[in-house]
Amino acid sequence: MNQPRRSVILRQRPDGAPTEADFALQEDAVPAPGPGEVLTRTIWLSIDPYMRGRLSGAQSYAEPVPVGGVLEGETVGEVIASEHPNFAVGDHALGARRWQSHSVSPGAKLVRLPADGAPLSAYLGVLGMPGVTAYSAITDIARPRAGEVVVVSAASGPVGSVAGQLAKRIGARVIGIAGGAAKCAFVRDELGFDDCLDHRGGDLGAALRAACPDGVDVYVENVGGAVQRAVFPMMRPFGRIAMIGMVAEYNHREPAPGPNLMSVVRKRLHIQGLIVSDKPGRFAEWRRLAAPWVRDGSLRYREDVVEGLENAPGALIGMLEGRNFGKLLVRVGPDRA
Amino acid sequence: MNQPRRSVILRQRPDGAPTEADFALQEDAVPAPGPGEVLTRTIWLSIDPYMRGRLSGAQSYAEPVPVGGVLEGETVGEVIASEHPNFAVGDHALGARRWQSHSVSPGAKLVRLPADGAPLSAYLGVLGMPGVTAYSAITDIARPRAGEVVVVSAASGPVGSVAGQLAKRIGARVIGIAGGAAKCAFVRDELGFDDCLDHRGGDLGAALRAACPDGVDVYVENVGGAVQRAVFPMMRPFGRIAMIGMVAEYNHREPAPGPNLMSVVRKRLHIQGLIVSDKPGRFAEWRRLAAPWVRDGSLRYREDVVEGLENAPGALIGMLEGRNFGKLLVRVGPDRA
Repeated sequence: MNQPRRSVILRQRPDGAPTEADFALQEDAVPAPGPGEVLTRTIWLSIDPYMRGRLSGAQSYAEPVPVGGVLEGETVGEVIASEHPNFAVGDHALGARRWQSHSVSPGAKLVRLPADGAPLSAYLGVLGMPGVTAYSAITDIARPRAGEVVVVSAASGPVGSVAGQLAKRIGARVIGIAGGAAKCAFVRDELGFDDCLDHRGGDLGAALRAACPDGVDVYVENVGGAVQRAVFPMMRPFGRIAMIGMVAEYNHREPAPGPNLMSVVRKRLHIQGLIVSDKPGRFAEWRRLAAPWVRDGSLRYREDVVEGLENAPGALIGMLEGRNFGKLLVRVGPDRA
Repeated sequence: MNQPRRSVILRQRPDGAPTEADFALQEDAVPAPGPGEVLTRTIWLSIDPYMRGRLSGAQSYAEPVPVGGVLEGETVGEVIASEHPNFAVGDHALGARRWQSHSVSPGAKLVRLPADGAPLSAYLGVLGMPGVTAYSAITDIARPRAGEVVVVSAASGPVGSVAGQLAKRIGARVIGIAGGAAKCAFVRDELGFDDCLDHRGGDLGAALRAACPDGVDVYVENVGGAVQRAVFPMMRPFGRIAMIGMVAEYNHREPAPGPNLMSVVRKRLHIQGLIVSDKPGRFAEWRRLAAPWVRDGSLRYREDVVEGLENAPGALIGMLEGRNFGKLLVRVGPDRA
């Protein structure tokens, strides 16, 4: 504990796309836990699209990060000092929400991870917030049935990959949309989707009409923008759209116009937004359900690992441009100290 | 039965707003009912916004009216000849869907109206399709709770007036939107809404912010256009939008852009389209529930009556410009022959 604690702070609010100059690395002393608190050494930091919203001063569903404040994000760490009865040194804990090398958190806000054979990083992706988001989108909103056509955008990402595999498990025909041939090949060959369309490969509307000649029953929306404009007119009567995110638009200074909503009436569409932190009870339910699928390899996922806390801002910047391939993670420290 | 049958046909498809030249009056002989059929003399013809969609060749939820075909719409008529055991001469029947003075229909497709003291015309409005639409919008989609803020557009119309009164019955605070001071006064003073805003009276957004300083929990959408643009940003987290119609846009040649959908994610909005013909079982349920309210005067409504089948096209044209005040009906013949 003689090394300093390193943290990434928000130096200034980004104007449009964030740049490295909007962030700064800060050092201070590693703190000691107070009563009921736990000190963790960060191993994995999760980088997720919702973080872009926290960098803006505008209203969102959560408070923005203050200028000068430490960036927020889910982590997995190793307990190195504990004043909470549920945590012992050496335990792995999920949840200290800071871009920093060491965090002090109330033990009540951490989840002790089971030694169940799943990799620690999985608790930030396939078994974590993105996985639960996909699980809730499919079971609470999209509710695909066997034979229905499900379209998933950002299909190689941590939400889309789980959403599509869950829809496959219950017999739907699943079409992914992803950016580039490598991601599309992964979605088809590794994740087992029925098809995957490259939104960088020309006329996405024509590709969708060819892949879904009878239209789309379910759309799991992660990206917005041109992909949304292409999928929306394809919806069939009684279709469901689970609105998870619109990452392609997060850097926009002004919101772009959306689709005309007359088709919502004509086709009796059901459109619903989802923020998984509203459903804390689903996290443990999902981990119990999906951990065996991760262990036996039947639920596939891919990670995109960036080394070093100092590279976390660049990782977020790249994600907002669609450069990550799989769940984006920063390795802040080794699995074992 | 010596007079001819008169029918209104579609002469040509309207380009934008319909004009009188798009319609024509046609005469032929009054037909006789075949086995299982019923001949009715039309008393009331209902004019409803959805009819605009049937005039276009474009895809909608129902087949378009063919050029040269008779216009479609709900009617109440008197049985003047019957080859169906459930109908006798003199009965009143709901449902022959033609703009014509006499219709032959299969008895199985007609509803015999009870002699329950409600006016015949009410079965086309407050007790009919618009009333059931409002009932379904409130109970199936909007689900307002006591104290929630409900905004209803086209509030003096047959759907909006019922939707708002139902929301009031379960304790919501109900704000109407209507066009002009007379309609707004009716909505406040006769229908008992908490307030009504005039969308022709200046800055609707500012008026909404003043009337709903904490935002809107439920929006019952009947009009689209500028009213939709004003209400959408006012939605509160977990808000519900029942999409019933967008009459202000039905004459548009191209759909206008809609709202950006990022707020659907951020606010976890639930948006759902409704076409009440999907729910045939709700009609009888609603008539049983609401007929006593119509008889005792606790469910208020207003009718806008146009005399004569030949004036039906003008009535529809005026409705699409917002000129009707209350449920628009054409009196095709007298209540008693």
